[in-house]
Amino acid sequence: MYFASDNTSGLPPQIWDALRRADDGYAPGYGGDALSQALRDRLRDVFEAPEAEVFLVTTGSAANALALATLTPPWGAIYCHGLAHIEVDECGAPEFYTGGAKLVLVDGPDGRIAPEVLAERLAASGRGNVHNVQPACLSLTNLTECGTRYTRAGIARLAAIARDHGLPVHLDGARFANALVAEGCTPAEMSWRAGVDALVLGGTKNGLMGVEAVVIFDPARAWEFALRRKRAGHLWSKHRYLAAQMLAWLDGGLWLDLAHHANAMAERLEGGLHAPLLFPRGGNMLFARLPRRTHEALQAAGAQYFLWPDHQNDPETVSARLVTSWNTRAEDVDRFLSLVGSEVA
Amino acid sequence: MYFASDNTSGLPPQIWDALRRADDGYAPGYGGDALSQALRDRLRDVFEAPEAEVFLVTTGSAANALALATLTPPWGAIYCHGLAHIEVDECGAPEFYTGGAKLVLVDGPDGRIAPEVLAERLAASGRGNVHNVQPACLSLTNLTECGTRYTRAGIARLAAIARDHGLPVHLDGARFANALVAEGCTPAEMSWRAGVDALVLGGTKNGLMGVEAVVIFDPARAWEFALRRKRAGHLWSKHRYLAAQMLAWLDGGLWLDLAHHANAMAERLEGGLHAPLLFPRGGNMLFARLPRRTHEALQAAGAQYFLWPDHQNDPETVSARLVTSWNTRAEDVDRFLSLVGSEVA
Amino acid sequence: MYFASDNTSGLPPQIWDALRRADDGYAPGYGGDALSQALRDRLRDVFEAPEAEVFLVTTGSAANALALATLTPPWGAIYCHGLAHIEVDECGAPEFYTGGAKLVLVDGPDGRIAPEVLAERLAASGRGNVHNVQPACLSLTNLTECGTRYTRAGIARLAAIARDHGLPVHLDGARFANALVAEGCTPAEMSWRAGVDALVLGGTKNGLMGVEAVVIFDPARAWEFALRRKRAGHLWSKHRYLAAQMLAWLDGGLWLDLAHHANAMAERLEGGLHAPLLFPRGGNMLFARLPRRTHEALQAAGAQYFLWPDHQNDPETVSARLVTSWNTRAEDVDRFLSLVGSEVA
Amino acid sequence: MYFASDNTSGLPPQIWDALRRADDGYAPGYGGDALSQALRDRLRDVFEAPEAEVFLVTTGSAANALALATLTPPWGAIYCHGLAHIEVDECGAPEFYTGGAKLVLVDGPDGRIAPEVLAERLAASGRGNVHNVQPACLSLTNLTECGTRYTRAGIARLAAIARDHGLPVHLDGARFANALVAEGCTPAEMSWRAGVDALVLGGTKNGLMGVEAVVIFDPARAWEFALRRKRAGHLWSKHRYLAAQMLAWLDGGLWLDLAHHANAMAERLEGGLHAPLLFPRGGNMLFARLPRRTHEALQAAGAQYFLWPDHQNDPETVSARLVTSWNTRAEDVDRFLSLVGSEVA
Repeated sequence: MYFASDNTSGLPPQIWDALRRADDGYAPGYGGDALSQALRDRLRDVFEAPEAEVFLVTTGSAANALALATLTPPWGAIYCHGLAHIEVDECGAPEFYTGGAKLVLVDGPDGRIAPEVLAERLAASGRGNVHNVQPACLSLTNLTECGTRYTRAGIARLAAIARDHGLPVHLDGARFANALVAEGCTPAEMSWRAGVDALVLGGTKNGLMGVEAVVIFDPARAWEFALRRKRAGHLWSKHRYLAAQMLAWLDGGLWLDLAHHANAMAERLEGGLHAPLLFPRGGNMLFARLPRRTHEALQAAGAQYFLWPDHQNDPETVSARLVTSWNTRAEDVDRFLSLVGSEVA
Repeated sequence: MYFASDNTSGLPPQIWDALRRADDGYAPGYGGDALSQALRDRLRDVFEAPEAEVFLVTTGSAANALALATLTPPWGAIYCHGLAHIEVDECGAPEFYTGGAKLVLVDGPDGRIAPEVLAERLAASGRGNVHNVQPACLSLTNLTECGTRYTRAGIARLAAIARDHGLPVHLDGARFANALVAEGCTPAEMSWRAGVDALVLGGTKNGLMGVEAVVIFDPARAWEFALRRKRAGHLWSKHRYLAAQMLAWLDGGLWLDLAHHANAMAERLEGGLHAPLLFPRGGNMLFARLPRRTHEALQAAGAQYFLWPDHQNDPETVSARLVTSWNTRAEDVDRFLSLVGSEVA
Repeated sequence: MYFASDNTSGLPPQIWDALRRADDGYAPGYGGDALSQALRDRLRDVFEAPEAEVFLVTTGSAANALALATLTPPWGAIYCHGLAHIEVDECGAPEFYTGGAKLVLVDGPDGRIAPEVLAERLAASGRGNVHNVQPACLSLTNLTECGTRYTRAGIARLAAIARDHGLPVHLDGARFANALVAEGCTPAEMSWRAGVDALVLGGTKNGLMGVEAVVIFDPARAWEFALRRKRAGHLWSKHRYLAAQMLAWLDGGLWLDLAHHANAMAERLEGGLHAPLLFPRGGNMLFARLPRRTHEALQAAGAQYFLWPDHQNDPETVSARLVTSWNTRAEDVDRFLSLVGSEVA
Repeated sequence: MYFASDNTSGLPPQIWDALRRADDGYAPGYGGDALSQALRDRLRDVFEAPEAEVFLVTTGSAANALALATLTPPWGAIYCHGLAHIEVDECGAPEFYTGGAKLVLVDGPDGRIAPEVLAERLAASGRGNVHNVQPACLSLTNLTECGTRYTRAGIARLAAIARDHGLPVHLDGARFANALVAEGCTPAEMSWRAGVDALVLGGTKNGLMGVEAVVIFDPARAWEFALRRKRAGHLWSKHRYLAAQMLAWLDGGLWLDLAHHANAMAERLEGGLHAPLLFPRGGNMLFARLPRRTHEALQAAGAQYFLWPDHQNDPETVSARLVTSWNTRAEDVDRFLSLVGSEVA
């Protein structure tokens, strides 16, 4: 009953097979190998973006920070939600990589930026006033940190506001696949067609060992990204082992199947839980308010999950963050639910 | 006949086995897992340094830059050889990570810093003069970029000069294992006992997928390193896959066996080559001056290696950098030698 | 009727005299001159801090950012009010100087940090969690950006909370003199005795050409500050011209007289204005809600001041920020008041 | 007998007068005042560059570092002479301001970059190779640190090489006026017409209190510079006091007269010295090898100057750096010469 995170689950057999196949003989380093080239071409196909450039790194923080630094000058303002991973969980990586840009927090319910608040903040941004940091970039996350989802239209609406102010859009897609299968649209529709300029396509939380692709839709930005990646020590020499994983993951839509399974397990949890949710479920995450007694029983039974700060401050309840992944088993969900049920009963 | 680099060779079966064993179920992320803890303890044993702290990252550039940033303030001077990887091949990673420190180049033959030159540079360093960057750190590389080796005594002598000026010592050990088996001493003797404060223990060039351990012998610096690593996006969530590799690599001295093989292959090359060497061989690298005609024949036969700038500027010769690795085959060496021999004959 | 800012008023005759006297012959550069040494000693006396170190720079942004960078590592969090000059008006100078630290905004009415909110934010700071920026520094401003004042006790209370979490305290004293004479206490009482570690003592807004003293009460931090200042291009060669100004300013309490006059002019404005104030006046700034018609009449008559965003959003009124300075004339105040009076009548 | 530096001499009366005139009443801050606008227009005239943008700061280090940061990305290489002020005397300011660019040292006799060495270094620069820092900027100094001078043709030749590799040119003109009057050409001829993109026009060493103008000939770079200046705390609020000085300095060619005097005093020194010079004199600096006994007599008589490292290592001699300035008196020169003469005799 492991619902702590999807970022520590193992690798499906197809990925292991691909890794072993990549182990054959020698290959040029640093992405000059055939697999890396093939991956670039494959992602261009998947995203219907024949000019996109693709860069692999091994953590989401690196992918986000490098992408943001490519879009944002040191005196820039990055508009993001106050719960965004880049604000809360990366120990200041965006500030480090950009050379000291500022994250400007934009409110909105359920971890999603409210369009009217974004518009208001941008209207009061101080653009052109030398005393103020200058608006530079909009950063979205899908799925959000609250497990909610931006629809295509939701992304497009925010991106349009950003575009009106000359800002490019970054999308932290650590759980892009989960959002995509839930939304039921194409990768292009949830990225560049909705106005996204730089996408972090997360593999690590969806079955890979540590592989994130940054897809840059404007090739004019690619060389800068390449230099920043190298300079940050994020250019792998044995690059084929990263590319091989992601190729196998894309093959036959495996990545979507894995995400679909994770979402289905979360849906199963939601269906059986009969507990109030803090946020509407958008994919493979659930935030549920549980009686403290239930929580204690679950812990005693070995269930693993993190608690979420809950401003309701009711001593009788806790808020549990439950994350499912590609390898969550239905029987673990059911056992969890039965523990909850017997407690509640 | 692949002698281009040791940084793209594959993984030995023991490493694959360890990776698959690590794939069992769930594990805490970010180094909180049992394998990561075991690795720390193992490296403390291997280095006879019970207080050392160990941090894994996946590239040598990251390992070096993070270690240097922990030892050097933004206004610091890092003393290194003009051919050092940190100066030549990392796109300014040390400058980026330190916040703008300066690499001060110290000459010396064969890629090794000359002690008297170091002493002279430090004597004229401007320490205490606010207009000058302040001496902060000595950075050595073993094996050097010229394939030569510092002896234990050589490291100790340079480290003592640094120590006299209050400078800690960083050792870029991308090929530490190759140096170690060639020198025939213990890991402790080639690191902290010789005066090294922060060691980059390279695994990638010696059989791992992308694993470098930074061993910090002064635990007071560890927390800063941990924060810098996270902030740079170099803290892996699925950390067990890194630890598992290095544990298997240390098991039964595999790492030394792999390095021994690589060195032996270079020795075999050297023995059969009958060509002038640019530098005395210290481990698994060889820089040989070959007739251009020989070079062309080798290329035609598919041999892979890089050329090295040779200031002799003789149009009849080229200088070849030949690097062997854990999986270099004796028959490839022999075939290479036979091609050279038949050309020379 | 110039109430736009105190940062553009001229220099009193005593300062000009001192500048001309300093023009005598040659002097060592970079603060090695006699006047600079004398100023250090004088400020040690004024602040009853015989070990304090003193550094002159020429802008408040530089003084703040250098002080903050000396107190805060790149991965640090600086706790400040959301209206603080360092957050709003310095184009990201603190982020630049620290190498990417994060400003964490702490609410509180009237531009003052609320102690309970600070305590709450620090309790939830993520100290010791590698994924979070680490609490590093508390930054206060006195007078605040709202023209209000922290009492000695108010500073001490916030500083004690900071101290409990191991954080040093920075005080942006661009209007320190105005706060001091209003509070009626000694410089020591409003700085180190209240828990301040690094003070920016502003001269520019109180009669100097461009002189700010950073007073570092812990001499262990002084050398780092000196290097940061030089590296930022803020170490003047003709340093005596800065020191001479501040010496003359301190002579006979001129600085306090100047501030007293500015405060008195603001009091005179407040007394005659009969308009609602947005914040209680702490020194030489006033934020008054005026009928729009009055505002237009004032503008027409040549009165200069900035408007302040007013969330009341009443189209019939505007909020005026009125700042007096050492050279505000009583007749200008009275003329302003008479214009307001005749409009209101 | 003060020959230590031209950076600590006082201000001529015309400058004081201008400062006092600027003290009249109120003025908008931050360069919005009439004097600052007038200075911009004046410098455009002086440089025959109607589109140039002008920015004032108060130190040469700031002017250089801000200009370089505007021309150079963090992964850039700045080509400069090994004795350049930006390399030796600014505590790493260029590295700080650029976010970690690298200064690549280019040799040449007498403090001047040798064109063939520059061409060679640029040919081997690694442009387009992601592992290397990328060539970004050429930085020249005129007068050089050795007191020598680049001719217009010399600058143009180096700038043409830079241009061939796509690099803009920065000119550190801390002693631009001294070079200009010695060369006998127009400001335009020694700057943009010779290929300079960003000029630091030094006032501080030629009679101003602390005023340096950065002249950016390509207006497309101006806004970035403005933001960088503010963000670094180098935007003065009481900006008119800087502008007023430089306006008076340009009036009637005062700046050229001051420089002419300084050069004439150096010529007088050179003419009477009968000592070997280390470098040919280009303006107001002289490097003379003196018998140690003469040096001691000069010191005893109160002469002030710095010694220069002299690789001849003759214990019987020292090398003195003698700098004259706008207010050097002929009688001091003559007294110095008589002391030298009587010692030599």
